[in-house]
Amino acid sequence: MSKAKVIDCTIRDGGLVNNWNFSIEFVRNLYESLNQAGIEYMEIGYKNAPGVVGEEGNGPWRFCLEDLLTKTIPVKKCTKLSVMVDIGKFTLDDIPLAHDSLIDMIRVACYSSQIEEANTAINVLHEKGYDTCLNIMAVSSVDQMELKQTLKKVQHCPVDVVYIVDSFGSLYMEEIRRLTEFYKRMLPNKHIGIHAHNNMQLAFANTITAERAGCSFLDSTVYGMGRAAGNCPTELLIGYLQPKYDIKPVLKVIEESLIPLREQMEWGYLIPFTISGQMNEHPREALALRKHDETKDKYVEFYEQYTCIEEKPLQAAK
Amino acid sequence: MSKAKVIDCTIRDGGLVNNWNFSIEFVRNLYESLNQAGIEYMEIGYKNAPGVVGEEGNGPWRFCLEDLLTKTIPVKKCTKLSVMVDIGKFTLDDIPLAHDSLIDMIRVACYSSQIEEANTAINVLHEKGYDTCLNIMAVSSVDQMELKQTLKKVQHCPVDVVYIVDSFGSLYMEEIRRLTEFYKRMLPNKHIGIHAHNNMQLAFANTITAERAGCSFLDSTVYGMGRAAGNCPTELLIGYLQPKYDIKPVLKVIEESLIPLREQMEWGYLIPFTISGQMNEHPREALALRKHDETKDKYVEFYEQYTCIEEKPLQAAK
Repeated sequence: MSKAKVIDCTIRDGGLVNNWNFSIEFVRNLYESLNQAGIEYMEIGYKNAPGVVGEEGNGPWRFCLEDLLTKTIPVKKCTKLSVMVDIGKFTLDDIPLAHDSLIDMIRVACYSSQIEEANTAINVLHEKGYDTCLNIMAVSSVDQMELKQTLKKVQHCPVDVVYIVDSFGSLYMEEIRRLTEFYKRMLPNKHIGIHAHNNMQLAFANTITAERAGCSFLDSTVYGMGRAAGNCPTELLIGYLQPKYDIKPVLKVIEESLIPLREQMEWGYLIPFTISGQMNEHPREALALRKHDETKDKYVEFYEQYTCIEEKPLQAAK
Repeated sequence: MSKAKVIDCTIRDGGLVNNWNFSIEFVRNLYESLNQAGIEYMEIGYKNAPGVVGEEGNGPWRFCLEDLLTKTIPVKKCTKLSVMVDIGKFTLDDIPLAHDSLIDMIRVACYSSQIEEANTAINVLHEKGYDTCLNIMAVSSVDQMELKQTLKKVQHCPVDVVYIVDSFGSLYMEEIRRLTEFYKRMLPNKHIGIHAHNNMQLAFANTITAERAGCSFLDSTVYGMGRAAGNCPTELLIGYLQPKYDIKPVLKVIEESLIPLREQMEWGYLIPFTISGQMNEHPREALALRKHDETKDKYVEFYEQYTCIEEKPLQAAK
């Protein structure tokens, strides 16, 4: 049986779809379901500082204040809680000691260029008593020598888990296998994690490839809910890792909560996200395109923005 | 650059979604697009016998009569044409000599138990001058010793390509790799092909895994259109095989033809198909479930049909 742990990020990465406007009932119900399914961690949001990112338009799971958490989950069960912080968007002083928090793990997301600040943050969070995790984003756009230097700087940091993050959903399984092996060699005393995006329908395939290569922390979201093409679907991942998990509570939450939500807002396999994945680009232009009915299915035009030598303004930018 | 050839099966496998009711313009336009993209083969339908399967409700691409083909494609270009025949649903006498047909390749679909009849058919089709292909369906439900015996019977058959067909979409990449290697060892003088279904979002991952392991005929469908969860999407496959193909004509056909079609009928990632894939079952029960608004999203109930020891009639069977 696999020793890997699953982190369901539906609220955190799915929050990028609905600006973290999940109801307390939705989050509580998801927690109960993940716990019943036997999933090790639930990432319940970002712990960004309201003063830094601005509260307007952002639901409460962007900030994860302690009283929201205790109100939502009055009795914590087996499933542990994690939150994410972005370098530049949170303040360490706002984060209580682990002893005074419902949160078990804090995951620091940074770009390769921000590794020094991330290390500093992890040292403080570790001192405060949290399990810690470092998510180096957009690894597909970091060249090998830079990645090596970045991982070297992590070697003496007290972080527990270091993640391979395919932010653009542009990596194939071979690259995932190679990266997993490289991370393991560079960081033999850390756990390695995988966070995949589904632009090319490879999020699940890449996640199980990483697991086979030695990743022991696996991110997923229920029904794949996450920014743009979304993530590795929890229901597929725990199906693969049978008999460790119970899939029924997850099917129930899809049927009752995710299907109605998907009717109101979109994520998943949509061609502009495929194109941005194939191009190894951030999905922001594809997301902008999808916002307007008149441009959302103009795939050829969208593709040509990347490939034509003539300068054509993006339809969505008009 | 990969030496693999792509067979786009949109009309044939996608026909299982709309009963082969594509207009002549749709099929002609698809042929032009695939040809522009540089795709080697287009599977234009089944060549079943109208007297055997019945014409009612079935569009013309279930029968692929010669005058339909010449009317649709008056000038054949680089993309070759294939059709599929099912054991028990066609008559060899109806099939003209290759010399008198627009068709280049005939693919014989059979279950492992029908291998003798399939061999007989292939011998005749080979004599008639066609390239031939053998698609042994539902390989995930054939045990290893039976598969070995079946492939032994193919060794002296003049067939050009033998396919691994994951009809239920229930195989993981490791199994695909193992099967590809096994087929290659059993049939060193044949080409090996892969036909994947997308129940677990692995059709593309399995297809490129098979290609890496030595499969040289790769099936796909535009926007994944095919029965139930559909197939490996052509746009992903040719993106992976760059720079051999031009993706733009395929994006155009998705934008103009597949998106409107998908609004009228469904295929793709839907949870009942995921469940049937995980269970290694034919999708027929899942397809029946999806026909009724009151049952189509009853995932837990559907799952329990397979797992509960109490006898509960399938909702869809009521």
